[in-house]
Amino acid sequence: MAGNTFGNLFRLTTFGESHGPALGGILDGCPAGLALDLQAVQADLDRRRPGQSALTTPRKESDSVEWLSGLLESEGRMVTTGAPLGFTVANTSAKPQDYDHLKDTFRPSHADFSYEAKYGFRDHRGGGRSSARETVSRVVAGAVARQLLAQQGVEVSAYVERVQDLQMPLPPSFHSREEVDAHPVRCPHPETARRMEERIADVKKDGDTVGGALVLVARGVPAGWGEPVFDRLHADLAKAMWSLPATKALELGSGMQGTLMRGSQHNDAFVSRGDRVGTATNRSGGIQGGISNGEDIVLRIGFKPVATLLQPGTSVDREGQTVDLPGRGRHDPCVLPRAVALVEAMACLVLADHSLRQRAARLTFGA
Amino acid sequence: MAGNTFGNLFRLTTFGESHGPALGGILDGCPAGLALDLQAVQADLDRRRPGQSALTTPRKESDSVEWLSGLLESEGRMVTTGAPLGFTVANTSAKPQDYDHLKDTFRPSHADFSYEAKYGFRDHRGGGRSSARETVSRVVAGAVARQLLAQQGVEVSAYVERVQDLQMPLPPSFHSREEVDAHPVRCPHPETARRMEERIADVKKDGDTVGGALVLVARGVPAGWGEPVFDRLHADLAKAMWSLPATKALELGSGMQGTLMRGSQHNDAFVSRGDRVGTATNRSGGIQGGISNGEDIVLRIGFKPVATLLQPGTSVDREGQTVDLPGRGRHDPCVLPRAVALVEAMACLVLADHSLRQRAARLTFGA
Amino acid sequence: MAGNTFGNLFRLTTFGESHGPALGGILDGCPAGLALDLQAVQADLDRRRPGQSALTTPRKESDSVEWLSGLLESEGRMVTTGAPLGFTVANTSAKPQDYDHLKDTFRPSHADFSYEAKYGFRDHRGGGRSSARETVSRVVAGAVARQLLAQQGVEVSAYVERVQDLQMPLPPSFHSREEVDAHPVRCPHPETARRMEERIADVKKDGDTVGGALVLVARGVPAGWGEPVFDRLHADLAKAMWSLPATKALELGSGMQGTLMRGSQHNDAFVSRGDRVGTATNRSGGIQGGISNGEDIVLRIGFKPVATLLQPGTSVDREGQTVDLPGRGRHDPCVLPRAVALVEAMACLVLADHSLRQRAARLTFGA
Amino acid sequence: MAGNTFGNLFRLTTFGESHGPALGGILDGCPAGLALDLQAVQADLDRRRPGQSALTTPRKESDSVEWLSGLLESEGRMVTTGAPLGFTVANTSAKPQDYDHLKDTFRPSHADFSYEAKYGFRDHRGGGRSSARETVSRVVAGAVARQLLAQQGVEVSAYVERVQDLQMPLPPSFHSREEVDAHPVRCPHPETARRMEERIADVKKDGDTVGGALVLVARGVPAGWGEPVFDRLHADLAKAMWSLPATKALELGSGMQGTLMRGSQHNDAFVSRGDRVGTATNRSGGIQGGISNGEDIVLRIGFKPVATLLQPGTSVDREGQTVDLPGRGRHDPCVLPRAVALVEAMACLVLADHSLRQRAARLTFGA
Repeated sequence: MAGNTFGNLFRLTTFGESHGPALGGILDGCPAGLALDLQAVQADLDRRRPGQSALTTPRKESDSVEWLSGLLESEGRMVTTGAPLGFTVANTSAKPQDYDHLKDTFRPSHADFSYEAKYGFRDHRGGGRSSARETVSRVVAGAVARQLLAQQGVEVSAYVERVQDLQMPLPPSFHSREEVDAHPVRCPHPETARRMEERIADVKKDGDTVGGALVLVARGVPAGWGEPVFDRLHADLAKAMWSLPATKALELGSGMQGTLMRGSQHNDAFVSRGDRVGTATNRSGGIQGGISNGEDIVLRIGFKPVATLLQPGTSVDREGQTVDLPGRGRHDPCVLPRAVALVEAMACLVLADHSLRQRAARLTFGA
Repeated sequence: MAGNTFGNLFRLTTFGESHGPALGGILDGCPAGLALDLQAVQADLDRRRPGQSALTTPRKESDSVEWLSGLLESEGRMVTTGAPLGFTVANTSAKPQDYDHLKDTFRPSHADFSYEAKYGFRDHRGGGRSSARETVSRVVAGAVARQLLAQQGVEVSAYVERVQDLQMPLPPSFHSREEVDAHPVRCPHPETARRMEERIADVKKDGDTVGGALVLVARGVPAGWGEPVFDRLHADLAKAMWSLPATKALELGSGMQGTLMRGSQHNDAFVSRGDRVGTATNRSGGIQGGISNGEDIVLRIGFKPVATLLQPGTSVDREGQTVDLPGRGRHDPCVLPRAVALVEAMACLVLADHSLRQRAARLTFGA
Repeated sequence: MAGNTFGNLFRLTTFGESHGPALGGILDGCPAGLALDLQAVQADLDRRRPGQSALTTPRKESDSVEWLSGLLESEGRMVTTGAPLGFTVANTSAKPQDYDHLKDTFRPSHADFSYEAKYGFRDHRGGGRSSARETVSRVVAGAVARQLLAQQGVEVSAYVERVQDLQMPLPPSFHSREEVDAHPVRCPHPETARRMEERIADVKKDGDTVGGALVLVARGVPAGWGEPVFDRLHADLAKAMWSLPATKALELGSGMQGTLMRGSQHNDAFVSRGDRVGTATNRSGGIQGGISNGEDIVLRIGFKPVATLLQPGTSVDREGQTVDLPGRGRHDPCVLPRAVALVEAMACLVLADHSLRQRAARLTFGA
Repeated sequence: MAGNTFGNLFRLTTFGESHGPALGGILDGCPAGLALDLQAVQADLDRRRPGQSALTTPRKESDSVEWLSGLLESEGRMVTTGAPLGFTVANTSAKPQDYDHLKDTFRPSHADFSYEAKYGFRDHRGGGRSSARETVSRVVAGAVARQLLAQQGVEVSAYVERVQDLQMPLPPSFHSREEVDAHPVRCPHPETARRMEERIADVKKDGDTVGGALVLVARGVPAGWGEPVFDRLHADLAKAMWSLPATKALELGSGMQGTLMRGSQHNDAFVSRGDRVGTATNRSGGIQGGISNGEDIVLRIGFKPVATLLQPGTSVDREGQTVDLPGRGRHDPCVLPRAVALVEAMACLVLADHSLRQRAARLTFGA
């Protein structure tokens, strides 16, 4: 219970289901005095919005944030007061009745069965709380976190590196939002993006789905963020990424590939970079001993093909009887282009939290 | 700060450095009335102990647990009282002076630099708090968790699936401790184990290190454990695994391979299994929507080659000057055989915690 | 930061200011399967509502709860699903402009100065987050907690024992809501209630305020709730009561009076009460060693006279200059009648939380 | 469960029972770089030690702290490294067998019954975890907190204001340790101290006990500490004080007496104090809206007469049968002189925690 809160000092609690009246959250711990660019928050949210391109679900949601607290107008800007930020996002296109036929059915690889096993109760309306629509609140809060990080010189950007077997031919590195969003598939390599788009279109035609991999890079993170031994920076990033609905794999820096190397090859040599110590390579992915070392933080996140198909199938009901699944609904053939917004939001939440936790690390403040 | 606590209802807090007088921890929240088999705890700890075979560091530590609280003798057995379990493990072979030459040096891919960046202060004695020796307390607590889980029919077992490129030719599945420990390399496939052992010997001769992959399987976990939306069961398992010192990659169920499939191929069909609902395949890895579904929980964890080499090298000091590293110390050429104990311990901690959290999920208790 | 969350397994997070668009909260951890009587929640809230009698502020607020998540209709009733309950209460009578003249002034014994000292920022609109209006969300959540407790046979009731020096001539004991609400002053001793009412009217005429004391009794709490050593049941109750805006004193059982006695007089003798062990007296106030013992839990809470006067006065501004305070606004001459709802809500939150925590105390479930 | 941790960023977890081998704790979150005066820690602990004067229990314990981690010698001083501080205090005078006759008996106003009701299990050896001996770990951690606070100009001091009905004739104010410790009863008013000492001697002769009241003052706390709305500074102080074994009453500033006043009399007028804003009176007790305002923080804590008598009595056993209590053991006739150390320690823990939390309150650091 009480699993709907994330973070320590910068802390998000969310509520809401796919087909209830609204979703929303409370973001507690945002320092006072941050002039919040509400349009930038909305822009982040728009990258997650359904219906933004032909690649996504046709469900129509304006997904506009309503701010209920924590902000005060000051010199023409909305500034955080130190009070918790309460916000809602209305469900304007909820169609709970579309799911009445699923009341007694467990859809394959959905949370239908496990939720019912847990609670003795299930919200069958579009997955209820288990729906990926729940992540809308995370993107709102992540957008606030992003602005707090920007004040500290930190930028977070993710992109689609691979759809099914179509992988862009470049190693993980930072790509600006402009580059990433140049193509609706959000792969910054135009030729690969084009092929990914075709693949997604093919899969959609079949009523099927595909997964792939995202890369996330945070740059400008100063050395010193992360808390040994359990709240290592990458442990919290891992929890963040694995709290998303479709994650199947996670890699940091050299990742699984790095486990094939010898230590003498794998180690990142320290080098002097003028005023700071840097590393010649970045197999550590910007984190050593659970603490950022000033290099880019680099993650790869594998996302499964989503479970909801548009093709008919079968499953079992509560009594174990086989039932037909008609294969309707409004769903994405490939969630990765929209998931870019999710992994960025979660990374921003983790980094913002650790930026505040770091303030308590030393007796006196310093560089 | 305050990152040295793990878990919610079943909660471990640890202390201790590699070369201080002792390490230890406090395990809070273990239900009263558990008859604890202290020898079994020690047996778990012995699997982590240095010097247990020719494959490991020659550092000699008896690693015996001293219990300080929380237990009362009752009918000849030591039984938990509901009070926190305090325990220590002495460092009998600490040699802090061995590290004096490293006082001003940052060893590559160690936490030397990042700790100093964080705290403005560094415990140079063998890595201090960042040393893998810190995990000794986790294994003690994990062993208690294992016994709590056994009462609920849950077994957790891990093994070495791959050392560098040598991978056993069988898909992930449950192997008993007997099978796993039959060979000191802890790979349950004898032919592969033999080859892994040779590889480790070769690498050791070169003063080098290798990594690889572990598989962890939890069986008997009832459907219903895990807390949406942030404390998903696999999110907490991910945090647990990524809080270990050498983790580079994590996969659940079908893992990265699964992201190459189409949804229609990837979905796990529900089937009726007599008195319960099961799945025909287990690409979900036993967890759906963040909640266990009654199938085996299956993780793969990639471990990097450890950074401490026995061969000489160079690095930089605090002023960015190049310094020689002599390449001495007492270290493992491959930590995976001992890491089996660590990943099992962390998984047990997570599962024990969620077994207690699940007790609060419903208004009334029931099946 | 992040101080807007209360509770562990049954956990409330709130947002909202006195003169923003809405207040609200997220209640996480309510077990699934509770049929929630929404009208009873509203009834609890109505006891806190401004304008309910001539004794209270004339500010008009309907204070009706909007439920946004966590409930599903099942057989004609609204039942909790295990998902977090999100709710809002609109501010329909906010008049932020009424406070423009206070922008640069620190009102005496308000939070104006300390908030500004903390955040470098102040929401001057009616006290912002420091306003007692914030407690509206607590009453909503407390009402849900009350219904969870009712399932376990627990009842919580509070009443006004004293207004200024007018104290009812009976020792603390349980009084039903019917008795308490028989008079708008919420003192169950009619003669004293009448005199209290007159006193409040007198004070109001002077533009002044008065405080007093409340008694809270929880009956039916089974022995065994509370968690040593820091989360003692009364430690959590104390935190709850002291988190309210006007608390100045708290007593448990025999209270300050009990500290005048000798141990031989003060001890509560155990007696056999048929099927259970009870105590002959209840100076312990129902809690021993931080754990409930099955007797009534009895608290006395002292509330100060509220700081906002309707008579003119002076104060200082940010520069330390003396400024006039005109003494307008819409405020209560005595908050105690409405505070009954607050202390009950907070006690219900604590007890509901501990009822769930108790589920994890033993290896096996039992009586 | 898991109630043995206190604090957020500055966080203490404790273990240990009255008659086990040792007690101890882990203090996590102490900033790196604090040169810890270990003798001063021991001096704090000595004020709590049994057998320090004729007023206290004859139980002999040296109560010396063993430090196990988190410190490194640097330039001749022991300095915190940022790693958790692990420590133990041995029980050298444990006599568990002295309690064998109590195995099946519930002593009046002790935790015997409620612990057994909770855990289905009881550690009968001197109260086990419920013993006040548990507080030894709090005093160790509180002493570290005190040194962290000293760096910030904050001093915390408590004294005995009243024993039974003998009250010193001065309003609460700051008294130095020198003044307080001038008399073993720890009342800074010599004439009252002398009479208190006589009273305690009389009571001891009768095998009885007495309680009374302590005053605690924290001075030098800057304006701005405390976190609305639940983690108000006095809410956390209240939880701290009520987590002690004998607390029956708590007052802040004007306390219960203040609830007799009118608002116009009770309000603290703001005044300009040169470079800062102060208040002419301090009925608020240094905290407004849950946040410190720069004035002295003033608490009064009522302690009951401890339950363990040296005179014979009766009680009931598990079956409800009357049993004789012989009235032996080693106990204090009045715990207040030693409790001075406890309330100071708890206040220091709360203030140190909030001093770190305050660091995250604003976007940029400032005055």
